[in-house]
Amino acid sequence: MNEASTGGAPRAEPAWRPVPRSRAYELVVDRIEEQIVAGALRVGDHLPPERELASWLEVSRAAVREAIRTLEAHGVVSSSVGSGKGAGTVVTALTSGALTRMLRLHVALTSFPMDDVIEARVMLERTSASLAAREASPEDLEPMRSLVDAMDDPALDRERFNEFDTRFHVALAEAAGNRLVADMTIAIRESMRHRVLAGFRSAPDWAATSAVLRAHHRGVMEAVEARRGELAADLVEEHIRYAYTSLPGFRTGEG
Amino acid sequence: MNEASTGGAPRAEPAWRPVPRSRAYELVVDRIEEQIVAGALRVGDHLPPERELASWLEVSRAAVREAIRTLEAHGVVSSSVGSGKGAGTVVTALTSGALTRMLRLHVALTSFPMDDVIEARVMLERTSASLAAREASPEDLEPMRSLVDAMDDPALDRERFNEFDTRFHVALAEAAGNRLVADMTIAIRESMRHRVLAGFRSAPDWAATSAVLRAHHRGVMEAVEARRGELAADLVEEHIRYAYTSLPGFRTGEG
Repeated sequence: MNEASTGGAPRAEPAWRPVPRSRAYELVVDRIEEQIVAGALRVGDHLPPERELASWLEVSRAAVREAIRTLEAHGVVSSSVGSGKGAGTVVTALTSGALTRMLRLHVALTSFPMDDVIEARVMLERTSASLAAREASPEDLEPMRSLVDAMDDPALDRERFNEFDTRFHVALAEAAGNRLVADMTIAIRESMRHRVLAGFRSAPDWAATSAVLRAHHRGVMEAVEARRGELAADLVEEHIRYAYTSLPGFRTGEG
Repeated sequence: MNEASTGGAPRAEPAWRPVPRSRAYELVVDRIEEQIVAGALRVGDHLPPERELASWLEVSRAAVREAIRTLEAHGVVSSSVGSGKGAGTVVTALTSGALTRMLRLHVALTSFPMDDVIEARVMLERTSASLAAREASPEDLEPMRSLVDAMDDPALDRERFNEFDTRFHVALAEAAGNRLVADMTIAIRESMRHRVLAGFRSAPDWAATSAVLRAHHRGVMEAVEARRGELAADLVEEHIRYAYTSLPGFRTGEG
């Protein structure tokens, strides 16, 4: 997809089909998304003018306008007025941050069973730990090390500990160097921030629990530094399952 | 998160802070998202009235209105007019389909390096194959088997073959029974539909290539049916890497 905006060689032509039903603007959004996923509309391409799109899809211009507003809200297209070369509605490259944000919100609001979310985290973070052990430079690992050290402060309250904990898992995902895996990992970990804090609040002996969590993080970091990918993956899995099974508030979301 | 709409026990109260900068509506969106990810606003909760929200966040009512329109476009809230009990703006449960759709579009439009996307697919589909071998009932596996059989038709053209191929990988993800992993797998596989077709078009000997792909799919299916999760995971990884390395059009997106 990094070649998305270059082109040159032959490619699929957009094949616009008329929209048959009501809620016309949603169907216009569908048609535009189809063209993007089919590779017929790429980053930097202009959408057809509103009038033409309305006529090809057999909908009102109001429906086209509403669809474009929706896609703008998603950051998929941007519009500019005027008549110059750059004017009109253009397909924009989405930022990695936009993906993380949407995915985080979706995981927070979709009723995924908690077991499914935990298994997905285990899969993602095992992969991050193995990749980080193989690929990361000492400089890439520096943020993980600083966070492990920062978590040693006995004066940290649970909220602040949770903040560093979240950032540790984000730093591990980033050290792995795979942007798509990192975005998914970060989104899922951040969507669980509230759950994890509820888990911390439910711990009967926070001093003991936080000592275990510190040791887990340090273990993962040291395995990654020692380039022992399989061990790092096993330790991060053990850590995630520990939090889920041993902190009652984690399951209920009530600390 | 499946308990998201139940509640009852004590929980975090929304803590609304004033918005400091311009592009006020985007910052209103941020504030609302913060409350959702923090667990202070849940599915079924009402947003504060427009007037109050504007006053607490120190923005105009127009900015609040624009923010709510944006969140409606994302399917995060829904509004209804009137003065009854259900009136106002309510946080809605996002559907699994909405996540798949957004993620598919993001993967298609974000400039992730192709290697990152391939590694993410390998991770997701290895997990799906292992889970399916462990969890799926014979009925769950039926769609995979039908698709493998359907792909044996020698009259299939490349477009149609690609359609069945996409559906095979979707069926594998669904047989695994983890909705979040399945949604991510489906989104990434579907976002690559165009690439895969370009790969097929670039194959110098389609009859030979499609025979290999058929054998790969059949191998994965049989390993899953034999409950050999590790073998199924290895075979699906080999299959994904084969398509990427042996079909030149797959890398360039031009078939």
